[in-house]
Amino acid sequence: MSELRQDPSTRDWVVIAPERGLRPHPVAQPPARVPVETEADCPFCVGHEAETPPEVWRLPPERTAPWRVRVVPNRFPMLAPDGTPRREVSADGLVRMPGIGRHEVIVESPDHWADLARADNSGVAAVLEAYRARYRALRAEGAGVILIFRNHGARAGTSIAHPHSQIVAAPVVPIQVRHRFDVAMQHYDDLGTCLYVDLLEREVHDGRRVVLETPKFVAFQPFAAVAPFETWIMPRAPQPAFGDVDDAALDALAPVLRNVLAGLAEVLGDPDYNAIIQSAPPGDESREYFVWHLRVIPRLATPAGFELGSGMAINPTLPEQTAELMRRAIARLS
Amino acid sequence: MSELRQDPSTRDWVVIAPERGLRPHPVAQPPARVPVETEADCPFCVGHEAETPPEVWRLPPERTAPWRVRVVPNRFPMLAPDGTPRREVSADGLVRMPGIGRHEVIVESPDHWADLARADNSGVAAVLEAYRARYRALRAEGAGVILIFRNHGARAGTSIAHPHSQIVAAPVVPIQVRHRFDVAMQHYDDLGTCLYVDLLEREVHDGRRVVLETPKFVAFQPFAAVAPFETWIMPRAPQPAFGDVDDAALDALAPVLRNVLAGLAEVLGDPDYNAIIQSAPPGDESREYFVWHLRVIPRLATPAGFELGSGMAINPTLPEQTAELMRRAIARLS
Repeated sequence: MSELRQDPSTRDWVVIAPERGLRPHPVAQPPARVPVETEADCPFCVGHEAETPPEVWRLPPERTAPWRVRVVPNRFPMLAPDGTPRREVSADGLVRMPGIGRHEVIVESPDHWADLARADNSGVAAVLEAYRARYRALRAEGAGVILIFRNHGARAGTSIAHPHSQIVAAPVVPIQVRHRFDVAMQHYDDLGTCLYVDLLEREVHDGRRVVLETPKFVAFQPFAAVAPFETWIMPRAPQPAFGDVDDAALDALAPVLRNVLAGLAEVLGDPDYNAIIQSAPPGDESREYFVWHLRVIPRLATPAGFELGSGMAINPTLPEQTAELMRRAIARLS
Repeated sequence: MSELRQDPSTRDWVVIAPERGLRPHPVAQPPARVPVETEADCPFCVGHEAETPPEVWRLPPERTAPWRVRVVPNRFPMLAPDGTPRREVSADGLVRMPGIGRHEVIVESPDHWADLARADNSGVAAVLEAYRARYRALRAEGAGVILIFRNHGARAGTSIAHPHSQIVAAPVVPIQVRHRFDVAMQHYDDLGTCLYVDLLEREVHDGRRVVLETPKFVAFQPFAAVAPFETWIMPRAPQPAFGDVDDAALDALAPVLRNVLAGLAEVLGDPDYNAIIQSAPPGDESREYFVWHLRVIPRLATPAGFELGSGMAINPTLPEQTAELMRRAIARLS
């Protein structure tokens, strides 16, 4: 028998259906790998810096030293910075606005074959430092929402194999982001507590879905995980916005993220995944309703008509079981 | 420059970014085809009826005649009918319920190699008749929501190549379904008119996004299409629930759906797609805020971290241009 679980952060339902994993005709899976373009063709490799727009950030900052991480505007941006994000309402009531914003690429390493799951702590921390620096810069420009994400593998939508993340500043607050925030605000109004603080406390107390605990961060698989092995990394010290994380927390986050990614690679064999940072919208960063968190969502299945039509996810695994597999994998690796 | 368009049915924003289509490293596309299992292995082929649970509906109804369409419970259901869909709230506040509901498969033809895009009108009408019959039966059982969908091709999540649709009755109203209905209710409260009637009138008057017009139905690509070539088929006579469609409308819908699918096949070369019917939840079927419609969503791109983190879609095409391609293709075919 399957089970419906309510996601406390959206109030939406997830179908947890372990029997679906038994289907004799499993959902046909496309090959997972990005076409391996050669380093000679790669716009993100050392020596090809002229193929991208000029850097907006780099580590180390001195231009005389070789770069470890660099941030450049996306050459084919979904949003661009020139203009005013003003709504236009047509005579027949349709609303549109120019695509004003920022779309940047964080090139995570000079090494075409590097991977966060195999990097050392300082390599992961350098990427996180780039995230924070660009978050702060885009916040100062007045973004409506700032989205930081990483697409790993073809099934996660990667178009270039060289390891990179992306950051988008959009002029509007997406309905889904607003909805998550509204649910947390309602919880605060009802109970006087932060939904995410309560949620983390419950997960740590229960323990079955916890993947990794450290003094500053907890990695766990949520009760109503929308995909097998979905993993959240959340700070113990509640903070609404990722941009406000301090140096000590950034350094402490690096090994947790690396361990989670290495654990997923160990259990699932380098799965395709998306990593996304959920943060309060810039205008609401001072509200204590929300706690930023990093979500890793492996892309093992293809959402079909049910998911598109209902918005509900189907997860053929139990997070209590997959978290156990992750704990063992991380213990083996350390 | 890209553009943000607000979807009037969700109030969410879609990034219309034609420049993104120019990327030299296009998003890596998995091969599109379902692994062709042989007819000998196919549980939906004639002669293999014993491999599925017993029929709940068939056409023609007489069991002595060969079937043209049959409906059977899914062998690996995401929801099953045994039990009471009662919420359980744990001591620490988590909500769950058993996965009670129905999950059925509509086998659309005895022919393993058939396809709705190439069927004749009576073949398409027979499938639509199965949709309506099962919608009515599941409504009578008290479903919270009834979802009818069709997954065509591996990238749309198909697991069996034999042409089939699915119908799910779930005990809860998904947030996304509730949200669409709420947006329509708000429009009604504000303006005293039906959002979908206004929307259809506007599309017909504008004409640039219209794909096909008939006396009873209009096919068009929405202003804020969430994917290239997304197409809606909507009745001119407003009706909230698909289950209430009459025989004449069902017969008139068949050639429109076939033409839309044939047009997509002509322009895009048999693309993978999901077709879904958006209908008012059974408890709200008497409200005149909503009009049921059939959405066809080709699956040409892979949603990545941006879409997962924001809920916003990215569409690299202009519906005004893709609708023109569809009009020409349908004219060529007829």
